[in-house]
Amino acid sequence: MPEQHPFTPQTRRQLLTRIGVAAGTAAMYQAMTAMGHAAGTDFTSPPTLTGARKGTTVLVLGSGLAGMLAAYEMRKAGYNVRVLEFQNRAGGRNFTLHSGDSFTELGGASQSVKFAPGNYINPGPWRIPYHHQGLLHYCREFGVALEPFVEVNHNSYLHATNAFGGKPQRYRDVMSDFNGYTAEMLSKAVNQHKLDDILHPDEREHVLAAMAGWGTLDSSYRYVKSDRVSQRRGFAKPQGGGIDGAPIPSDLLPRDEIMASGLWNWLSFNMRLEMQTTMFQPVGGMDQIGKAFAKQVKDLITFGCKVSAIHQDDKGVSVTYTDVNHGNRTVEAKADYCVCTIPLSILSQLDVQVSGPMKAAIAAVPYASSVKVGLEFNRRFWEEDDQIYGGISFTDQQMSQISYPSHGYFSKGKAVLLGAYMFGSAAYDFAGMTPEQRIEAVLEQGSKIHPQYRKEFSNGVSWAWSRVPWTLGCCSMWSEQARKTHYKTLCEVDNRVVLAGEHASYIGCWQEGAILSSLDAITRLHKRAIGAA
Amino acid sequence: MPEQHPFTPQTRRQLLTRIGVAAGTAAMYQAMTAMGHAAGTDFTSPPTLTGARKGTTVLVLGSGLAGMLAAYEMRKAGYNVRVLEFQNRAGGRNFTLHSGDSFTELGGASQSVKFAPGNYINPGPWRIPYHHQGLLHYCREFGVALEPFVEVNHNSYLHATNAFGGKPQRYRDVMSDFNGYTAEMLSKAVNQHKLDDILHPDEREHVLAAMAGWGTLDSSYRYVKSDRVSQRRGFAKPQGGGIDGAPIPSDLLPRDEIMASGLWNWLSFNMRLEMQTTMFQPVGGMDQIGKAFAKQVKDLITFGCKVSAIHQDDKGVSVTYTDVNHGNRTVEAKADYCVCTIPLSILSQLDVQVSGPMKAAIAAVPYASSVKVGLEFNRRFWEEDDQIYGGISFTDQQMSQISYPSHGYFSKGKAVLLGAYMFGSAAYDFAGMTPEQRIEAVLEQGSKIHPQYRKEFSNGVSWAWSRVPWTLGCCSMWSEQARKTHYKTLCEVDNRVVLAGEHASYIGCWQEGAILSSLDAITRLHKRAIGAA
Repeated sequence: MPEQHPFTPQTRRQLLTRIGVAAGTAAMYQAMTAMGHAAGTDFTSPPTLTGARKGTTVLVLGSGLAGMLAAYEMRKAGYNVRVLEFQNRAGGRNFTLHSGDSFTELGGASQSVKFAPGNYINPGPWRIPYHHQGLLHYCREFGVALEPFVEVNHNSYLHATNAFGGKPQRYRDVMSDFNGYTAEMLSKAVNQHKLDDILHPDEREHVLAAMAGWGTLDSSYRYVKSDRVSQRRGFAKPQGGGIDGAPIPSDLLPRDEIMASGLWNWLSFNMRLEMQTTMFQPVGGMDQIGKAFAKQVKDLITFGCKVSAIHQDDKGVSVTYTDVNHGNRTVEAKADYCVCTIPLSILSQLDVQVSGPMKAAIAAVPYASSVKVGLEFNRRFWEEDDQIYGGISFTDQQMSQISYPSHGYFSKGKAVLLGAYMFGSAAYDFAGMTPEQRIEAVLEQGSKIHPQYRKEFSNGVSWAWSRVPWTLGCCSMWSEQARKTHYKTLCEVDNRVVLAGEHASYIGCWQEGAILSSLDAITRLHKRAIGAA
Repeated sequence: MPEQHPFTPQTRRQLLTRIGVAAGTAAMYQAMTAMGHAAGTDFTSPPTLTGARKGTTVLVLGSGLAGMLAAYEMRKAGYNVRVLEFQNRAGGRNFTLHSGDSFTELGGASQSVKFAPGNYINPGPWRIPYHHQGLLHYCREFGVALEPFVEVNHNSYLHATNAFGGKPQRYRDVMSDFNGYTAEMLSKAVNQHKLDDILHPDEREHVLAAMAGWGTLDSSYRYVKSDRVSQRRGFAKPQGGGIDGAPIPSDLLPRDEIMASGLWNWLSFNMRLEMQTTMFQPVGGMDQIGKAFAKQVKDLITFGCKVSAIHQDDKGVSVTYTDVNHGNRTVEAKADYCVCTIPLSILSQLDVQVSGPMKAAIAAVPYASSVKVGLEFNRRFWEEDDQIYGGISFTDQQMSQISYPSHGYFSKGKAVLLGAYMFGSAAYDFAGMTPEQRIEAVLEQGSKIHPQYRKEFSNGVSWAWSRVPWTLGCCSMWSEQARKTHYKTLCEVDNRVVLAGEHASYIGCWQEGAILSSLDAITRLHKRAIGAA
């Protein structure tokens, strides 16, 4: 779902502080044996759970991806599985708001989605990195159609309120000029023999060649306005056809402004493994994955079960829940084992009979807040006027980013973009507003990047994760310290109960974390159940 | 179609020489008035050609995109248009080889395409940059469905025969390490006050912050193996779920090898305006564009017309051609005006009655050679084994690159990739081979990157542009000198004849060049025809 360390650079001091903090985590994990440099996550193939004892029962709590996957694989292994779900819908945080949907958040505000038919927004997960092989495996197995999600767009905008007079800059301009000036400065130092203590003569030559090519420097190792540089950052008058086809090169952004702007942060951001190309999204909305999982296990799910207690002894597990769909009667469900995928933000408030250390672990992980806003406009002005097809524009305003749709390119009629996606204090500020105020704030901020906003706006919808009764937040945010103290304990099989979900993974806030956590949890539970562990 | 300045770095000397040459062109165009920094090409909207005289006739030679667009817009403007086409197919270099197609190249070698039904390869143009707004406009107008073409793939391979023991490296590893070492070196110079002559104290601080963040340096401004760096280049043991989910960071590539390898050239290559994200391809093959254009003007086209002479006087134009489809009879077609889109490689051999300077211009532009090879494999091992979805792997071997299909992701069964795309001497070497030898050479070279090649190979097809009778090459390659001397003359309306095509544009070798050239040519011809120029 979200990146784990989002940031919105605002002032120089914040910027420097942030970099200091991030750099401090660098030696977090120590090197161990050298292994084959595998890409991606830790998925190779689904587990083979053999030898399950006939008649063994398993209760799965929660029908998000982790819960449904546990149910799917454990039934396949021969277990008798039942799933209890609080909502009247399977999928958990994997869902999509479609035209005509409506919902009420904690605090009572209700919204309905007024998008044109077929338009949608994903309030939760919305993109899938290429290395999330566990999730991609099940998408393929369950027949979920995927299409590319465009993350990096060289023609999108980067915006900082206090840089360039508040004027948004094209990603390609910032990238070209940042690289060019960096190459120019390093070349200068190398040419003046100021790095001879670390560079032997051959490498000096190679570094100079690299800087000249990579940074598009001229023959004097200067980064200057030129046709060649404009072949990267774009021309003032583009290349054309016919008699007046000659292009005119574009002016460069000043070096000191580029460096002070902090806009280079977004170049950096998109180099993260989680943001690299090729990403994917399901055709028609992220909920296509939840629906495909649900298709496999729908006969196992009971909806409207509000769990209040999880007890266990040597003989089995007993789960107490309120049957919301049948007069709120109290029900006790029993099984031999339990896979609990309830988010820790909820679980920490229930009566759960596990060891003291695991209780401490369940209470140790705060949940991030996050707000997303979907905006529908009368036309794709970002395509038609700005030549932006998919990808993301970033800003240091609270809204943080605009993600343009990676589907329906070039189509006419109304279209929806992600008009805000924020974490931290901005998310709490926005959660404190009415839905109307959120839309107004996002229109105000978005207009700084796209002046067409007000004129083309049709309607919008907002989703504040801190106001969602079934998660009370967006996803787990492990601190380094909590991870050291509590993580292994949280993942252990506690007698007959094991936890699963993105919170029980190193890929927090992503669906892949839920998938891999679930596979690991059921593999270990299975071993316990057959007496192998 | 191809990039204008392709290169395959091979030795250090070649590398340094090449960079020197490229840097020399930097100040090619001089700055003129500061204009709004428009993106993309020189297209805003289709021309409005008003006031055409009733009954005026126009002969268009060639039914590639330039010719068909000229026919379409001039008929709309009220002209009586006819198109003469040499082949028995419209589209020109816009075409696709589908399963079951067959062809014979100059020299007599015949090939048939043995791909599985539905599979294809585009021997000519294959991708559309976001700023090719002229072409995109007509795709939209004519209803051509487009899908993203993935150019940059952070998980593809970069390969240099003499670097890293010949082992291909992941794009993300090279990118991360190149950026990291660059940032580390520049930080060192800045920290040691060796660039104080150009950096004032504030900017020093900003540059250090930028290098630390962009280059993922540690708190001592070092680029070192760490969890944080692996968040960009990938882990040795990836992040996982459950109890053993902790990742293990990956080893870095050595700085001097990265710098000496020349692999950074490909990072640079993908920053070019022409290669930036978002790119597109038509769903089903590039020929969908040619077919959509042809649908608009098919009633105007006569096929099998081998033009031998273009004459003109004060009263009109006379074109002599051999009617290949009707007993090779000689025919003379007459019209008031002529738009000639015949490639210069062919036109320079015909009897064309234009001014001496224009004749010289027609003869002044050499055509590039290029070879493409399509390979069909039994399965998508690049996806299944290597987690590469679309994008391009680059190598310094003759084959130059492997472009993985940007469609049909995750599907089972046979799939086709572009197994070679080469220019220059490599293209001539390959054109000199038999089709079987080409496939063998590409399998041999490609196995260096994908050891699965031999085992999974099904069949292949090659296309050598220098052996194509209707173009005798791939596309125009203007030298800087020829451009200065001949370009304007080539584009001028010569009495009643005007030339159009990618060769009459500053976007040579791309379809957009053909589109913009055609629009400019007919706009000026129209002015001439109504007496306004």
